Formats: sequence, C-alpha cells, structure tokens
Amino acid sequence: MSERIPAAVLGATGMVGQYFISLLANHPWFCLESVVASDRSAGRRYQDACRWLLGSEMPEQARDLTVSPLGAPLDARLVFSALPSDVAGETEIEYARRGHLVFSNAGSHRMDPLVPLMVPEVNAEHAALLRDQRRVKGWSGYIVTNPNCSAAVLVTALAPLHQAFGVRKVAVTTLQALSGAGYPGVSSLDILDNAIPYIGGEEAKLESEPLKMLGRYRDGAIEPAEFVLSAHCNRIATRDGHLECVSLTLEGAPSLEAITEILRSFRALPQELALPTAPMHPIIVREEQDRPQTRLDRDQGNGMAVSVGRIRPCPILGIKFVALGSNTMRGAAGGSMLNAELLKVRGLLT
Amino acid sequence: MSERIPAAVLGATGMVGQYFISLLANHPWFCLESVVASDRSAGRRYQDACRWLLGSEMPEQARDLTVSPLGAPLDARLVFSALPSDVAGETEIEYARRGHLVFSNAGSHRMDPLVPLMVPEVNAEHAALLRDQRRVKGWSGYIVTNPNCSAAVLVTALAPLHQAFGVRKVAVTTLQALSGAGYPGVSSLDILDNAIPYIGGEEAKLESEPLKMLGRYRDGAIEPAEFVLSAHCNRIATRDGHLECVSLTLEGAPSLEAITEILRSFRALPQELALPTAPMHPIIVREEQDRPQTRLDRDQGNGMAVSVGRIRPCPILGIKFVALGSNTMRGAAGGSMLNAELLKVRGLLT
Amino acid sequence: MSERIPAAVLGATGMVGQYFISLLANHPWFCLESVVASDRSAGRRYQDACRWLLGSEMPEQARDLTVSPLGAPLDARLVFSALPSDVAGETEIEYARRGHLVFSNAGSHRMDPLVPLMVPEVNAEHAALLRDQRRVKGWSGYIVTNPNCSAAVLVTALAPLHQAFGVRKVAVTTLQALSGAGYPGVSSLDILDNAIPYIGGEEAKLESEPLKMLGRYRDGAIEPAEFVLSAHCNRIATRDGHLECVSLTLEGAPSLEAITEILRSFRALPQELALPTAPMHPIIVREEQDRPQTRLDRDQGNGMAVSVGRIRPCPILGIKFVALGSNTMRGAAGGSMLNAELLKVRGLLT
Amino acid sequence: MSERIPAAVLGATGMVGQYFISLLANHPWFCLESVVASDRSAGRRYQDACRWLLGSEMPEQARDLTVSPLGAPLDARLVFSALPSDVAGETEIEYARRGHLVFSNAGSHRMDPLVPLMVPEVNAEHAALLRDQRRVKGWSGYIVTNPNCSAAVLVTALAPLHQAFGVRKVAVTTLQALSGAGYPGVSSLDILDNAIPYIGGEEAKLESEPLKMLGRYRDGAIEPAEFVLSAHCNRIATRDGHLECVSLTLEGAPSLEAITEILRSFRALPQELALPTAPMHPIIVREEQDRPQTRLDRDQGNGMAVSVGRIRPCPILGIKFVALGSNTMRGAAGGSMLNAELLKVRGLLT
Repeated sequence: MSERIPAAVLGATGMVGQYFISLLANHPWFCLESVVASDRSAGRRYQDACRWLLGSEMPEQARDLTVSPLGAPLDARLVFSALPSDVAGETEIEYARRGHLVFSNAGSHRMDPLVPLMVPEVNAEHAALLRDQRRVKGWSGYIVTNPNCSAAVLVTALAPLHQAFGVRKVAVTTLQALSGAGYPGVSSLDILDNAIPYIGGEEAKLESEPLKMLGRYRDGAIEPAEFVLSAHCNRIATRDGHLECVSLTLEGAPSLEAITEILRSFRALPQELALPTAPMHPIIVREEQDRPQTRLDRDQGNGMAVSVGRIRPCPILGIKFVALGSNTMRGAAGGSMLNAELLKVRGLLT
Repeated sequence: MSERIPAAVLGATGMVGQYFISLLANHPWFCLESVVASDRSAGRRYQDACRWLLGSEMPEQARDLTVSPLGAPLDARLVFSALPSDVAGETEIEYARRGHLVFSNAGSHRMDPLVPLMVPEVNAEHAALLRDQRRVKGWSGYIVTNPNCSAAVLVTALAPLHQAFGVRKVAVTTLQALSGAGYPGVSSLDILDNAIPYIGGEEAKLESEPLKMLGRYRDGAIEPAEFVLSAHCNRIATRDGHLECVSLTLEGAPSLEAITEILRSFRALPQELALPTAPMHPIIVREEQDRPQTRLDRDQGNGMAVSVGRIRPCPILGIKFVALGSNTMRGAAGGSMLNAELLKVRGLLT
Repeated sequence: MSERIPAAVLGATGMVGQYFISLLANHPWFCLESVVASDRSAGRRYQDACRWLLGSEMPEQARDLTVSPLGAPLDARLVFSALPSDVAGETEIEYARRGHLVFSNAGSHRMDPLVPLMVPEVNAEHAALLRDQRRVKGWSGYIVTNPNCSAAVLVTALAPLHQAFGVRKVAVTTLQALSGAGYPGVSSLDILDNAIPYIGGEEAKLESEPLKMLGRYRDGAIEPAEFVLSAHCNRIATRDGHLECVSLTLEGAPSLEAITEILRSFRALPQELALPTAPMHPIIVREEQDRPQTRLDRDQGNGMAVSVGRIRPCPILGIKFVALGSNTMRGAAGGSMLNAELLKVRGLLT
Repeated sequence: MSERIPAAVLGATGMVGQYFISLLANHPWFCLESVVASDRSAGRRYQDACRWLLGSEMPEQARDLTVSPLGAPLDARLVFSALPSDVAGETEIEYARRGHLVFSNAGSHRMDPLVPLMVPEVNAEHAALLRDQRRVKGWSGYIVTNPNCSAAVLVTALAPLHQAFGVRKVAVTTLQALSGAGYPGVSSLDILDNAIPYIGGEEAKLESEPLKMLGRYRDGAIEPAEFVLSAHCNRIATRDGHLECVSLTLEGAPSLEAITEILRSFRALPQELALPTAPMHPIIVREEQDRPQTRLDRDQGNGMAVSVGRIRPCPILGIKFVALGSNTMRGAAGGSMLNAELLKVRGLLT
C-alpha cells in the first residue's frame, strides 16, 4: 500500500476513541490525521486532553495533534465516530452531508432504515443501502454503523446458524464487562463484590439490532429477520469481554454435531478478502466444558473472534451455548474498522 | 424456651459448617453440643482445627469443643450436616440408622424418593414422607435435605406462582457467588477479571430439584411437578448471593400486576409460625429498575429473603424477572435450620 | 434522654452525608431535622435527590425531607458537614457565624490554628480552643473538625504510644479503600486488577494532621507534636477500611511487650463517658500473624475500633505494626459524631 | 543460531513452570525437550496433566510430551526449576550432581554461600562463584538461582543507586500480586474486597536476598552489602505485578535529579549483550504523579523492565519512590531465563 488513507476520529478522548487511535496507529491502509472531541478538550494537544486508558502507550502519531471541536472542518474524508449517542446524531449527519464517510460506533443511526448496520461477516450485502442513503438523504458522504457491543457478539454467533438452518427464537442472558460503559463509566463502589442486572437501553438494542442485521436488503430497504429475541443484560466486574448465555430454536432441529460443524467452519467475506482487522476464524469453537471464559478468550483473533462453547441441548428451546467476544474490539472500534476495510476493497471509500 | 435442644454439626470446619455453628450460637431453640469433621481435624480443639471464615468472631461455645471424627457416637439427636457429597452419603445414613435426625445440606440424598427435599415456605407437607422413610428404610432417625443453593433461590420465587397459576416452563441463567464453591473453593487467579460459564453438576441440580419440591406428596411418594426447566450456571466474582435471570411461562398468561401481587403478598407456614430463622417476607419485590443487586440485597431478612425485581414481559416465554438470594443462608445453613425449626413445631424432632 | 437534639446534614446526598444520616436515624441523643446539598439536589425530596449507597435501607426520617440549598437558613443548631472541600470552606464559616455548631469532616479548616482537629480518644482537651475560636473570629457558633480518614486511623494507634513513650519518627504506607474517594469516586476501570500509588493531597494530610492532634493546647493555641512523619498512600480495590503499615521510633526503645500492653489497655474519655458512638476498645490488638485484614476487621466496634497487629521489631526504626480502621466510620462520619457527643457531655453543645 | 539447546523444566505443571514453557516455546537459543513434575502428573501427556493458566494457548511443543517423574534421568543438560521449595532442595542437588546446569526459581539454595543468587543487570560477576561451587561440592553440573519475586523488583531498582552512591537504609512496603502465591494459591474468598498484610517467609527473604546480590564476590565467597533493610509485605487482589513503596537513605544525600538520571540511564550487561529476554531499559522512570500502576506497567519490556516513579524526598530516610515489576517475569521465569542466557554468552553453559 503506497499511500495510506487519512482518517479522523470523533470522540477521540473517550475509551472507544482511544481504541480507534490505537488501531489506526498500526493500520496498513489508514492513518490518523485528526482528532475531534468535545469543547472541553478542543484546542489542546491530544496528549494533554486525553487520559490514556489502554495498556499500550499512547501512539506517537496522536500525541501532538491539536484536538478539533465537534463540527470543525476536516481534511480527512474517512471518519470514525466514537461519539456518545446524545451528540452523535446531529454531528454525524453534518459530516455525512459535507461528504465525509462516517463509520460510527454510536447508537443514534443504527435503526435508521437507510443506514447500514453492518458486521462484515454477517451482512456485507447491506452496503447496497448506501446508494439509497445518499440518494434519499442527498448526502455526498454517508454513515455506516456497527452494532451495540452485546449485539455484535450475538449476531456473529447466530449468522452461520441463521444462514444454514434459520433461527426461530433466541433467549440470551449477558454478563457484560465494565468497558462497555465507557470511562469513567461504572463506579468501583457499584461493582466490587456485586452484579447489576440492568444496563440502560441495552436489552432493547439486543432484541432489535440482530433482526435488522440478519434481514435482507431488497429494493432499497432492509427486511428484518422474522424471529423473536429476549434478553437479560447484566453488568459484572470484568474489564473487557461480553459473555452471553444463549438458548435458541433453529428450524428443522439440527443435531449438535451439525451446529458445531457449521460454527466451526464459518468463514465469510472478510476472511476471503483477508481484511487487515479480520480474524482468521470469526468463530472459535471450544471443546472444554468450562470455556469460553471472559479473561482467557476475549483476546482471541486480536479481539475480533467470537468464542463459542458448551454447545448442548436446551430442554425448552432446543439448543444452548455460551458465546464470548471483546466488546471493545469486535463490539466497537474493531467492528467499525472492519466495515471501513470492507468498503475500501469494494471501492466504496470514495 | 426453658431448655435448648443440643445439636451436632457434621463437616463443622468448612464454610457451611461455620454458618451452622454461627446460627446455633444464637439460636433460641437449639444449641451446639458437638462438632464433627474429617480425620485431619479430629481430636483437635475446634479453634485450632478450623480456619474461621465468617466476618463475625468464632462463637465462644465452639472454641473449646474437641472435633470428633466422622461416624463417632454423638449424644445430640439433632444433627446438621455440611459434609461434602462424597462422604455425606454413607455417613448420614449411618447416623439416621442410629436414631439421629439429620438435616443435611449435602446433595447425596436429595433425589432419594423417600427423602424430603424441603423449603418450609414451599413444600412443608413433604415432611409426611418421613414416616414412609423410617418405615421402609427401617431407621429410627431420619434424613431431611434442603436444596442446592441456586435451586433454593429459584424455587422460593416460583412457589407462589406455581400455586397461583401453574408454572409451565422456566429458563434460568445464574450469576453465582464464590462462597457457593466452599473454601478454599475458587482460586483467585481463576476469577479475578473473569466469569466462568460452568459449575460442575449445578445445571443438572437446578433443572431437577425444583420439580421434586413443587411436586405433590401422595401415598408415600412425591409426584414431581410437570414443567420443564433449562439452566445456564455461571460463577462470578461476588462473595455471597446468587443472582438469577428467570424467564418463564405461567398458565393462563396472568398480568404483570397479578404476578407482582402474588409475589409481594406471599406468606407461608414459617411466617405464620414465626419460626426463628424465617424472614418476615420470604419474597421482597423491588420496584427500582436496577434491583435486586447482589451486594445490596443478599442480606435481606438476614439472608433468608429472596428479592425479586424487574418483572416484565418476555417475548418468548411470557414473563421475565430477576431473583436474588443468599446462597449461604437461604441456600444452605439457614435452609437446613428452618427445616429443623418447622419439624420441631410439628412435633417431629422426636 | 427525653428530647433529642435536632441536627442538619450538609452534603447530605454524598457518601459521607449518607453515613451521617444513617447514624442520626438511630442516635439516642441527636435526630435528623434537615438535609442540605448542592443546587442540583435542592428543592427535591431526599429520596428522589439521593442515590442511596449504603447496605441498609434509607432511613424513614430522611425520605421525605426536602433538600435545602447550601446556605439556606437552618433551624437545627447542630450541623454535620460532609461537604466537599471546595465548598466547605465558605459555607461552614457562614453557618458558624450564624450560630451553628458545625462538626465537619471536610479538610478546609482542619489546619486553621483556631479550629480543633479532634479525635476524642486522642485530644479531647483541644476543645478548649473553641472559646478562643469564638472570641477571635467573633462567631456565635463554631467549627470542630475531625481528621482525614487515613490520619484518623494512624493517630488513634499512635496516641497511647505517644503518651506513654513519646513518638520520634513514623513511616507509614497505606492501602486505602475506594469509599475514601467518595461516590462515584474511583472508576472501576481504573482499579480492577490494579493498585494506584497516589491519592491527591493525601500524603500531605497524613504527614501533618497527626502532629496537630498529638500537640498540646496552651494559651489559645496548639503546639504541634515534634516528630517527623513520612507517608506513601495507595488506593486498592477494597470497599471500606484503610490498612496502614507503620514503622516507628519511640523514645527509650520500649519492649514489644510494653508496646503491646499499652495499645491493648488503651481507654480514653469516650470509653469512660460511654459515649453512644464510642467503641468499648478504641484499639484491638490481634495476635494472629495475618491480622488485621481489611474485610475481616474494618467493622470492629461498629467501625469505630482501630485494629493493630503484627507488632514486631523494625531493623531501621525500631518497631513495626499494621493498623486498620474504617475510613467511613472512625475516619469520617463516626468521628464527627463522636466529637459532637463529647461536646454535648461537656456542655459545649450550646 | 543454527541449533537450539534442549532444556528440561522441573515443576512443569505449576504456574512458574508454565511460564518457563511459554518462554522456551519461542526462544531463539533454547528449546523445550522434557517436562518433569510430581508423581501425580508423571506418565501422563503434558496437555492432560496440566491445567494451563496463561492467557496464550499451550505451546504445541509441550502438548504431547510425557511428564517425567522427579529425579528421572534427563537428556537435556540445561534445566529450569520451578519446583516448590519443599522438594526443590534435594532434587536440584541431585540433578547438579549428575551434571545438569540448574537454573532455579526455588528458594532452597538462594542463601547457600556457594550458589549464585543472580540478576544479570545487578551482579553478573557472581557467576564466578560457580567454579568454587563445582570444586567444593564436587558436582559436574551446578545450580544458579534467581531471587524471590519481590526482591527481584527491589534489587533492580537499588542496583544503580548502590553502585553510584551506596545504599545505607531501605524501608519497603509491598503490594504483591496473587500469582506470586502460585496456583491455586490464594482463595478468592480470602482476597475479594480484602488486603492481607502477611505473606509467609516473604519479609525475611526481602530483607536478606538483596544484601547478598549487592555484595561482592571475593576469594570464592560473596561479601554481603552492609546496609539495613526493613519490609512490610502485603497481598492484594491483582493478578500480576508487585508494587513496592520504597524509602531509602543513600550516601552523600544526592539530589532527586541525580537519582532520577542514574535510574533512567541504567544499562547493564544484558543490554550490552542484547540477551534475548533482556529489556531495552531495565528501569523505566515515569514522570506522571500516579505511575507506575500495577496493571498499566507490569508488562513493560515484556515484563522484564522495572518501572520507577514518584521519586521525591522522604522526611525520614531521604528519598522515596515507587517501584513495580512483574513477579512472574522479572521476578520468576524471566529472571531464570536471563541468567541462562548470560551464562551461555559467557561460555558457561557447558
């Protein structure tokens, strides 16, 4: 790759923004050009405005960038958004209108009928919606979203099963990590020696986003998948990695062996195209009776692989298993990055 | 109570044994007379043999008792068993044969058709089985068991609903505390910043014990309840308190209001009889959207109340809610103690 | 006590404010009359304005009180202040000027030469300063402060040793609990699987406050004690309880036995007067080689006792030991309450 | 490196043993040939005998090796020992007698006057003792030890200061990680929401080992350094990384700037020789007021760098700072490996 494509990061000082910056620092196709954040940070050097939260050191490229305010003009056409939902809505539209290609991790536009909600292994064909989006909205740029972190893990595990058999019902209970709430997020006093069986808005997202993603693009719209989802969402004291206990009904009641084989052999477009952020195996099937475990498996495939284990019969719905994935990588910054990589290869980063 | 009934504790040095000793130290009807433990501890003073794990200080009554070996003759007719399952089976039978009244927290005899598996608020009438047990087994004593900790919490929440409406299906995912695994139990290296989606044998117990408990005593046997249960069991980094995410189907699809009212107004025999260990309300219904929480609610009713919250519709099974109870009190030592109190009032401690 | 003295709590919605309210709810001498908090909460009912953080339920007396804004006129003459330092300074002066008797947990006035910095077991005689304070400042009320949480634990352990032998040097390293930082305080992402060797301003307080407290009142001023202190302060993932590793030099190099006996037999004015919040033993000496431990010992004496253990020789300074106390009780709300109780008995609550 | 030197690991199934295996799997000079463990594991395949605890997957090279019993004949001359102290003593001597070159992480022989206790950055010249060891003991092999984990971190930070100025007194309080206790090690019930101010034997090691390491080899013996050390050792709930609060007296009272510069510019033989496991900087000086932190800094230099921060005056001893290092890498397996690398370059692996 002779020349890397410059990119901006919106919400650059937050936790997901830092993951974007970290991914861009070592990306073969994209590079960091601008950082954008709220007025509190604007005008300061990134290294002064940002409390760096990741284990690695803050990348050199970012240190001396001056933080631009939200809405500031940007040279980079490619934009990754880690904005909080309350400001993402308007800001992202404004940038799309000005011709920027916005890859957003925010929730604001995910359920907009003209905005692709995409996981490249699951519904790459939804990118077709971008043409409709631009036409109808009159934007020279566009907005592509990736799902909520818990939905990203679930839909990756469901995708090959839906394709092979058809999903009918899914009951899921999550054990979600602290980083899913951003920084400072959950107070240590609320979570030490505790579990909280509630995450604001999470169950609604988890019960709706997979239906859009597993739906079909037809004539300028997504026809959602027609199965039913039910979610219990819990916060527990883990740093990263959402663990999900899934019970489901598949059409035709396939055998455990058939299900296991479908999951294990799952490959999709990002693997065929060898996209830089794509894991070799989007799903890793574990045989051990006590895996996947949050700490041991969240970093599989650089945080982009979803681990599935304990595949066994469910006396009520037919099948149960445990799925686990990184909420910060597969469920956030890595997901957006993979979307951009896919559209680049497809010639749609223009 | 002029004279307190002497009691022995089997498995006295373990965590559940310590809870038994703590409860007996302040009990109005029973008092601690003997402590029994494995050969490693036998012959030593209790305070030397036991690494005391509870927040309170070791009770004076226990300190200077000499630990008896398993199977040693006991003066106390009343026996509480906190033995591990691998030794509980034979040892408890031997004591029952010798005329002791064994209240066991161990799993060994729970599913024996002649052994009551009892939670006094749920199935006090199963005590009738004791007459059959003694007759058939030819024992002068008897064995009464209380359920596995996760089953104790679940069945308490289900009991009033089963009675009022009839339970048809129950899907439950648990977030279980470390103390459920005993001491030393779970290594800190296994659980810090982690969740483990597997607890050996737990799902099988949770899928079967409630059916026996919600069954009917008829002609010397328990006819199990005829609904279906499915469980996912997880270990998380909390000290005490099992949190359970429950989805269920009730007959006749009652309203959320009707369900809430049935749970809230639930009272049973232990409350009518004002048994010493009985909580005023066996079930506490929380209105807050983020309760019950493990740390905040596990000690309700001295650990004997089960807290229920987030009662809401489930798109698959009809209803969902979150239940929480103390695994060490309602789910272990307190449950056994309440069984003994019930049988005392019923004149069956003889 | 026929009639209880009404009291107001400043900063009532924060964590320390909640401890004040909890203590007042069951106090034999004082009762809660008003709650005062920042503008954000003012005008709302306490139960709506406050996210209750303690394990117990919110007291009935507090639920329906309307939160008054900072500076609002108060009927209660007795005022407990849990204000953050940045607003405590002016607000507490204003209330003292208006005739209120302010018992403050804030840091603002602790080192004011005319304000007693008091722990009743340590320096009850510093109350004499109040006469000077009122005269010089011209206030009809007054301000009494209690020390920083880590200093409260340390000074309680040092007091009997200073009195018996004279302290010359103290090197202390703390392992401090999360609740010391208030709520929401420390982000869970900052402290899970981590220790932070820095707490803003803490070392300076811990190196100066004990000198004032162990000093002498003479002619309207406190002559500070003349020894030297050095502190390392660390934050760790515990809920409550500051553990302090102390090395010290005492005059005359007394034996370990003499030191142990002085600590064990320590009683002071609050014990003689049997003040309601006073622990029977202000210091509890542990013999076990691995005690005190944070979780096991922080609630000794209802959180008002300081536990000391591992008393042993230090090859550099002479003696070393480990001290532990509750930062929320002995180190915050309980400390203020005990000050007010002492002054009541002394006839100074007028 | 054309041919890699085969090595055996003693105590291969434990936590430190697993780190040895992990390091050997990717080592440019050494390779894994045999695994040795207790009788319980002997005869089984490594992957069946070992519960793998590290985040990475078990290396392919190890999976199918058959575990040999302690004392079994070994082809590999190079031996890494992660044995527990109670069996290390005899076993390591036996292997040295048979001609093996034993690099031991166990405590048994560290204070033997003829056994080098080595950290290559600190006292590489102590390797001279090996000739004396072989001669006096009559062994064809030898034993080299690395220090206790907390001593390894401390001595690395002290070494350049001792060399530049001379250390006179060191008071250290540690906050040590769970992995230092091995696996299963510390029970989760003992450490959740707790700190334990005691680690068996640790303070004695920390107060003696640095004196041997900072001593001088002369005429077949080590003359220990002549300063005094005092230690408080605490266990806290972190996975890896020992944090140490250090106060010290240096000769000549050098300035903070001089001390900082000496630490920052420290390089030693492993860096000059570019040994494979050596970090580029053995000491990393942090400028931030709240660093080093356990989680953020323990993996610096692949766990082989010691981070030092908060260098400031100590009113008692002169200087204080905070040091942090990985107990599993710099303090255990990595330390042994670096010793072997050094001796290889020196031509002493023969």
